Amino acid sequence: MAATGREFFTVRTVSEALTGFRPGHITPVETVSLGNAYGRVPEIEIVARDPLPGFDRSSVDGYAVRAADTYGASESIPGYLRVAGAVRMGASASDPVGPATAVAIPTGGMMPPGADAVVMVEHTSEATADSIEVVRPVAPGENVVRRDEDAAPGAPLVPGGRPLRAQDVALLAAAGVVEVSVHAPPRVTILATGDEVVPPETAPLPPGHVRDALSASVAALVRGAGAEPMAGTIVSDEDGALREALTAAVGASDVVVICAGSSVGMRDQTAGAVAALPNSETWCHGLAIKPGKPTLLAHSDGIPIIGLPGNPRSALVVFRLIGMPIVRRAGGWTAEPLVGTIRATLARDLPSAAGRLDVVQIRIDRDGDLAEPIFGSSALLSVLTMADGYVIVPEDANGLSAGEPVEVIPYD
Amino acid sequence: MAATGREFFTVRTVSEALTGFRPGHITPVETVSLGNAYGRVPEIEIVARDPLPGFDRSSVDGYAVRAADTYGASESIPGYLRVAGAVRMGASASDPVGPATAVAIPTGGMMPPGADAVVMVEHTSEATADSIEVVRPVAPGENVVRRDEDAAPGAPLVPGGRPLRAQDVALLAAAGVVEVSVHAPPRVTILATGDEVVPPETAPLPPGHVRDALSASVAALVRGAGAEPMAGTIVSDEDGALREALTAAVGASDVVVICAGSSVGMRDQTAGAVAALPNSETWCHGLAIKPGKPTLLAHSDGIPIIGLPGNPRSALVVFRLIGMPIVRRAGGWTAEPLVGTIRATLARDLPSAAGRLDVVQIRIDRDGDLAEPIFGSSALLSVLTMADGYVIVPEDANGLSAGEPVEVIPYD
Repeated sequence: MAATGREFFTVRTVSEALTGFRPGHITPVETVSLGNAYGRVPEIEIVARDPLPGFDRSSVDGYAVRAADTYGASESIPGYLRVAGAVRMGASASDPVGPATAVAIPTGGMMPPGADAVVMVEHTSEATADSIEVVRPVAPGENVVRRDEDAAPGAPLVPGGRPLRAQDVALLAAAGVVEVSVHAPPRVTILATGDEVVPPETAPLPPGHVRDALSASVAALVRGAGAEPMAGTIVSDEDGALREALTAAVGASDVVVICAGSSVGMRDQTAGAVAALPNSETWCHGLAIKPGKPTLLAHSDGIPIIGLPGNPRSALVVFRLIGMPIVRRAGGWTAEPLVGTIRATLARDLPSAAGRLDVVQIRIDRDGDLAEPIFGSSALLSVLTMADGYVIVPEDANGLSAGEPVEVIPYD
Repeated sequence: MAATGREFFTVRTVSEALTGFRPGHITPVETVSLGNAYGRVPEIEIVARDPLPGFDRSSVDGYAVRAADTYGASESIPGYLRVAGAVRMGASASDPVGPATAVAIPTGGMMPPGADAVVMVEHTSEATADSIEVVRPVAPGENVVRRDEDAAPGAPLVPGGRPLRAQDVALLAAAGVVEVSVHAPPRVTILATGDEVVPPETAPLPPGHVRDALSASVAALVRGAGAEPMAGTIVSDEDGALREALTAAVGASDVVVICAGSSVGMRDQTAGAVAALPNSETWCHGLAIKPGKPTLLAHSDGIPIIGLPGNPRSALVVFRLIGMPIVRRAGGWTAEPLVGTIRATLARDLPSAAGRLDVVQIRIDRDGDLAEPIFGSSALLSVLTMADGYVIVPEDANGLSAGEPVEVIPYD
């Protein structure tokens, strides 16, 4: 080993990476059926063709009336209305509502002609076989959903650039949109490298070797970002093998992830192989984050290449913070998802250097109000598996003190 | 329509439902490969067979030494050590470290015999071709990951009863666990009912009809709970049709969801069909939640049956709050996921009745600190699609006031 003590060339901050390092291409658009559209990202806003619900509907069980006929009605002086019929669900309302008459209507029923409001059944009682007492007045439009109240023609149903949620699928179904133009899931190739790395099924482990922990777990995060992980192989350290694997990956992927060896020598080899790719540009070689400094970000032919740190724990931290947003952008996301946090009280001091973003793994105690940091070597995966979430100590902070409130981002 | 003004029989609170309404069965256990294990729920804790990483490793690039040889070393009085060799990645360390000697070692390299610590390369410099200066002392064990530091044999790797996260997959891979016993995804049948309900592809919409918004969107939430939605059909209101569909569903599912018609008549018909099932018990017929009161929870042969309210918006609110936890439990979850929230200031008063849980849809303004409630009929899906998240007004609160801090649960 050449122990050169070599430092990183171009160190950038996490904020710079999140705003400045972008994929050169977005995935193309494909058409999927509504049943497969959940979680997919529409290219552009989808608008309503027709008014929704399409007809005036009652929002309660009751009687369709002319609102003016109920004015002044009270418990002591009820109004009397003749019942002229009943609306059936799923049928056109036929019986018109004339003066001093009412038509029984179920929730969701179509408003009969002439009626402009619905009296809730709770505010009526039967007076005779064909008439009711009304004990509370209604205003015009009360308990009625207007024919275009859910959406007017041309109104946006769902926005583009963010994944469809369950309610978005519901509104599209209601509007009769059964095919949706969405971005294809990004294809993300994951390459593991390192002479010490062997497949997970290797048993017993030969001396000095480690099993590939990252291919399967980065693939999980890739799926979590709405993308398709592509079967990686463990690339040997033989001269040219990484360059060859990278060239093939860039040609067939929307994003390439290299799980680099952890030593300086392996990092140099990775950086060299990336730099030798056609139309390549190394955006940063070193990120101001702990753990995760030995991160490389580059492009080749506009395809983002993410060189993760060699320690699996650092690699997963960096891929969650930097890699997933890049993958989402490649898949057409135009903004990051809203992230909820759990507020808790920090149980210990968290020292940190200003100018560097620290990601600290946290166990939340049972009462949910104490955030216990988990320390340990960045080589330890158990630090991550024991954690309920993590706290970010921002770049401009000089650490956090025990007793301070912190926002814990829970792992899903 | 018989407008009877009939009230609900057995109204329960949301807390009672979450603690008291449980599936009678948990899905069986199946074996999956580690590559397919992300998000799956192990039945029981998985423990390490062998120590991890399995050998003492360096956590830095540097020199393996006997710590005692470095004591007293400083910039002004460096220690001198003879370099006796170098550790290669992925190989057994062969060169032993004797007194006053050092062996070069990369991050992740196997500690050579005789060494008990590693000096970082940054704290050394070359003195001669085969010796180094050490300018800082190390303690025994410093910069070394012990052979069982990630996991000792028999130590838990991941717990049972909650889904595997990316880091759990990583630790299992590192430990050579390539097959995992996990609960089968619950099969959830979704039945839509109602004379007014037509399939989403229906165009143009016949008068008085609505497209089935719930089958596809409840299916999305079912997937979000780690389960498998089963193609439902729209069940006609003909006598016995619902009972027949329910009987078939209970026999083939782990959870059954009925998207009921919204009128009192349809609710009565649903309740009647459920009550007529073999070994059925109606757990509640009415939930103290707004929107969503007309919710029915029942069992037949231990299979949970969730009768959702007829309004699509209410149905999605109830399925998210009550249905998803039931589905997760059927799939082996033993606790609910941690839920992060976004803290914001309430922009308007939220009136609410004590004893009832209110779910209020919220749009968060761009600065992220103002929570704007979205009001509107529970028949409107657009209220949900416009929302960034929701606020829960708990059962014991009499509403919330403008200016109060609230916790918004973001939609994913």
